[in-house]
Amino acid sequence: MGSPQKGKQSVAFDKGVYIRESASIVGTKEGEGPLGALFDMVASDDMMGCDNWEAAESTLQKEALSLALGKAGLTHKDIRYLLAGDLLAQTVASSYGLMDFETPILGMYGACSTCGEALGIGSMLIAGGYADTLACVTSSHFASAEKEFRFPLSYGSQRPKCSTWTVTGSGAYVLSASSTSGARARITGITSGRIVDYGIKDSFNMGCCMAPAASDTIAQNLQDFGRKPSDYDKIFTGDLGTVGQQALIDLLNAKGIEIAAQHDDCGMRMYDSIRQKTEAGGSGCGCSAAVLSAYILPRIESGEWKRVLFVPTGALLSKTSFNEGQTVPGIAHAVVIEKV
Amino acid sequence: MGSPQKGKQSVAFDKGVYIRESASIVGTKEGEGPLGALFDMVASDDMMGCDNWEAAESTLQKEALSLALGKAGLTHKDIRYLLAGDLLAQTVASSYGLMDFETPILGMYGACSTCGEALGIGSMLIAGGYADTLACVTSSHFASAEKEFRFPLSYGSQRPKCSTWTVTGSGAYVLSASSTSGARARITGITSGRIVDYGIKDSFNMGCCMAPAASDTIAQNLQDFGRKPSDYDKIFTGDLGTVGQQALIDLLNAKGIEIAAQHDDCGMRMYDSIRQKTEAGGSGCGCSAAVLSAYILPRIESGEWKRVLFVPTGALLSKTSFNEGQTVPGIAHAVVIEKV
Repeated sequence: MGSPQKGKQSVAFDKGVYIRESASIVGTKEGEGPLGALFDMVASDDMMGCDNWEAAESTLQKEALSLALGKAGLTHKDIRYLLAGDLLAQTVASSYGLMDFETPILGMYGACSTCGEALGIGSMLIAGGYADTLACVTSSHFASAEKEFRFPLSYGSQRPKCSTWTVTGSGAYVLSASSTSGARARITGITSGRIVDYGIKDSFNMGCCMAPAASDTIAQNLQDFGRKPSDYDKIFTGDLGTVGQQALIDLLNAKGIEIAAQHDDCGMRMYDSIRQKTEAGGSGCGCSAAVLSAYILPRIESGEWKRVLFVPTGALLSKTSFNEGQTVPGIAHAVVIEKV
Repeated sequence: MGSPQKGKQSVAFDKGVYIRESASIVGTKEGEGPLGALFDMVASDDMMGCDNWEAAESTLQKEALSLALGKAGLTHKDIRYLLAGDLLAQTVASSYGLMDFETPILGMYGACSTCGEALGIGSMLIAGGYADTLACVTSSHFASAEKEFRFPLSYGSQRPKCSTWTVTGSGAYVLSASSTSGARARITGITSGRIVDYGIKDSFNMGCCMAPAASDTIAQNLQDFGRKPSDYDKIFTGDLGTVGQQALIDLLNAKGIEIAAQHDDCGMRMYDSIRQKTEAGGSGCGCSAAVLSAYILPRIESGEWKRVLFVPTGALLSKTSFNEGQTVPGIAHAVVIEKV
């Protein structure tokens, strides 16, 4: 067996790493968007029957994982690790949401790139033989994120055109070393991202904060695997939105890489931005996680797309770092997903 | 090669996973404590020459990693992954502290257990062949943690006897697949922890919040590896302090496991609690990380201890979860460290 290391930042999986099952759950606004009918579950109330938004977000994670396990015919006893994260301080949505599963939990933080980080580490743990089955779960909630990062909702603050709307939603993935019990797709490689900081301080313009990191990771993926953009049927970033998409395309163009034909963005798929007034698109750990499960995986399963580069993107700021005048660096973790 | 999975929650490493080098850096109060002379660096100013505490904590991580790499004769180009985390919201100490290393970064969150989580995942990545060399870095800072979790320092709040003092410090570890360039110790196994919640809501009594998780992980480690406590020369928890230590010993006693002879706690080693008025002991991601490097590893290298169970402990609360009346669940990740 050769080294799984591929180029400078990537890993290739010769052994099987399968996405055995997945599930998505979203809030009311996401349910009213163009993908609404595709999610496994749409909440009838964004509070999820809870007393506060943080508990509602925890419930999203709990329900997404329960759904994914149920679809796979598994229980929590069948999974060896939970890799989970969210946007809240000290990732409390994950801790409170998943503790009842009584499974070893590896807490992740990569802002909105966390789904990519978790799928990447999860794939390495599966291929390394450390687990036969494990699960990755991430979430975000519009109201808990606004409280965590921006202004109280009741201020009714105006939002600039470049801003994105944090998705209320969660996606859960059951990874497995075998496809004998079925598999929705196969993970054949990952490219872990570096933090890239272009000095942008406008935390409302997340797309431009994260585009340099997405550009760095995508270019590195192509180099490490010796591929060109057209070797992917789609290159899906997490939540750059319309403004970040243009920045990404321009940044890669400057490196001589043209991805306009392949590029798509989970955040741009989530809402009808004009009708739903979401400006540049959707964002959040739950955005790419829910879109991968509901929109991307079915197209890989059907064979419409043979190979997709899934690149969740994260902005590494906090309320405190913003108030202290820090820049907003970005990170992006890529996962190569192929038809089984 | 057999499966690396060991029992229900553990992994055994037959192949070498080496702690090639490590470094510790602490603040002024820690430097005045009983271990003061053992740390690689003691800050002369807890602000580390920065404008704010968060930047000071970032500097702790940056300097700890620089020191560890320097001691190993390596640069950032030699390490394939950085596994890092801290206690601040959105783990900003790690992001801003480590972004200049230009290395793929996998952000971790396990509260004060993060050092154990990072060493555990790092060991799996090394043994799985995903990296020849990588680094794990964690930190905490008394002032940034008080601001993040409790009251403004200038209130001069009184502290209950069961409270612990967040360590200003950081520890960095260079893990390697080979010992040919030297190694301080070997990691032979890990036990990843589940979240355990006994319903305790007193966030000042972190020791008792975390003791049930420490008990769960230690008992599982003994079961998974078929060991008794005396198979370890020392069992070091991260930051239970004097109050949590008693709870841990009692909880394990109730399971028929007697660890009083082997148990020690990094937090209890850090300060002279009476002279330094630190009550039950030290805590924070930087506590166990600095004590492992400065105090535990030298005793393993010298052969005084042949096999140590290192169990960083974390309390999974946030300011918001506390204000919303949630309990404080705990988690503990164990690492088996042996003489090379």
